[in-house]
Amino acid sequence: MPANPTAAILLIGDEILSGRTQDTNGNYLAKQLTEQGIDLCEIRVVSDDAPEIIAAVNALRGRYDHVFTSGGIGPTHDDITADAIAAAFGVGIDVREDARAMLASHYDDPDKKLNKMRLRMARIPDGAELIANPVSKAPGFRLENVYVMAGVPVVFVAMVEAILPGLAGGAPKQSVTVRYDHPEGDIAAALAELAARFPDVSVGSYPFDGPRGYGTNLVARSSDPARLIQIEAALKQLCEK
Amino acid sequence: MPANPTAAILLIGDEILSGRTQDTNGNYLAKQLTEQGIDLCEIRVVSDDAPEIIAAVNALRGRYDHVFTSGGIGPTHDDITADAIAAAFGVGIDVREDARAMLASHYDDPDKKLNKMRLRMARIPDGAELIANPVSKAPGFRLENVYVMAGVPVVFVAMVEAILPGLAGGAPKQSVTVRYDHPEGDIAAALAELAARFPDVSVGSYPFDGPRGYGTNLVARSSDPARLIQIEAALKQLCEK
Repeated sequence: MPANPTAAILLIGDEILSGRTQDTNGNYLAKQLTEQGIDLCEIRVVSDDAPEIIAAVNALRGRYDHVFTSGGIGPTHDDITADAIAAAFGVGIDVREDARAMLASHYDDPDKKLNKMRLRMARIPDGAELIANPVSKAPGFRLENVYVMAGVPVVFVAMVEAILPGLAGGAPKQSVTVRYDHPEGDIAAALAELAARFPDVSVGSYPFDGPRGYGTNLVARSSDPARLIQIEAALKQLCEK
Repeated sequence: MPANPTAAILLIGDEILSGRTQDTNGNYLAKQLTEQGIDLCEIRVVSDDAPEIIAAVNALRGRYDHVFTSGGIGPTHDDITADAIAAAFGVGIDVREDARAMLASHYDDPDKKLNKMRLRMARIPDGAELIANPVSKAPGFRLENVYVMAGVPVVFVAMVEAILPGLAGGAPKQSVTVRYDHPEGDIAAALAELAARFPDVSVGSYPFDGPRGYGTNLVARSSDPARLIQIEAALKQLCEK
């Protein structure tokens, strides 16, 4: 079985680093990539600072098959992602006519004009392909293996939905979860032995302590459904001992 | 005014990258650091893989004043953070008596024994200082500028509470938020001019679209309360135009 494509997510925004905003875009995209059989290997959050964005994009795009960014493509002075991406690739950037046309159709109201700042959202690095934004029109873009998308969650989700069908996936990793009603330390030795017997399956142990009591979720992940059926049975047997 | 100390957070765990778990530790610690006047510059999420953890720790500890890690210090086979940290620093690691004693006091119940796997949680890299865990006793540790803490949120929070008083902070950044009841593109040009007049204040624009309508939060951040009062007045004036 060929290895799955790899990916990283780069979240751009001071508001995440200050703690003002709890990011949800990363978790949403992580789930989508898992379903599609693309292995998400890393998430990074950096500030609205051009050298930081450029360094992170260049580190990640050289290492993974796909890089997905979120944030910093709006009309205000702190939206610097498109320029930073162009700089990372060493290409030019300017207002592009097809992007301007998308904005013009949205901002044709006398009360909501396509002013100079909004036109910043039509600045697209040379050689990029637009990503449709069905919510508020201002497009994202793809440059080589880097997908540049909005930070506003409803727009981010719409852009991800637009690009996912075009991404070659691998064998989706599925998971089975077996609940163990005791602390993980009680089962750790037996679990390690079991994990060693299934070297092709990723086995994780996640203790929880919530309103429905405490215990441990034993989670096995694999892209081979037959192996998951086998390990689920083995995990259940372990928990009954 | 001297620059604030800098920091990075490193979250370790396949369960975050698979999308199974929505991380909350990063956001919690981000808020605490902001209040303490420590500038959080980067968050990374990597998988439960020793070379990945080692590379990330070494990249971050060389660059920032403090690095805070979360995850991978439990008793099961997939808990490899302590060994990875020792490898990153090139120091030895073994069961330490003071850590073992903490565990022994917790696991003195015949039904909840300090077995061989649980004893893994007393493995501490040479030269580290323990971080108390008032919840479930298994300690975290600090090695130079790297603070290694649990992934389970209730334990992570307790460990952060234990270390925060000992961290030298800078001037805490405070923020003011002014709500603008229109799309951010309407105010973007005026906002850019205002931001240029306050180069010492960080000014962000965050559009929202929720149950209480849509609009834009204009957020100014500074460690100088007098400047925040000035810019808040200027932002309100801008919004009334």
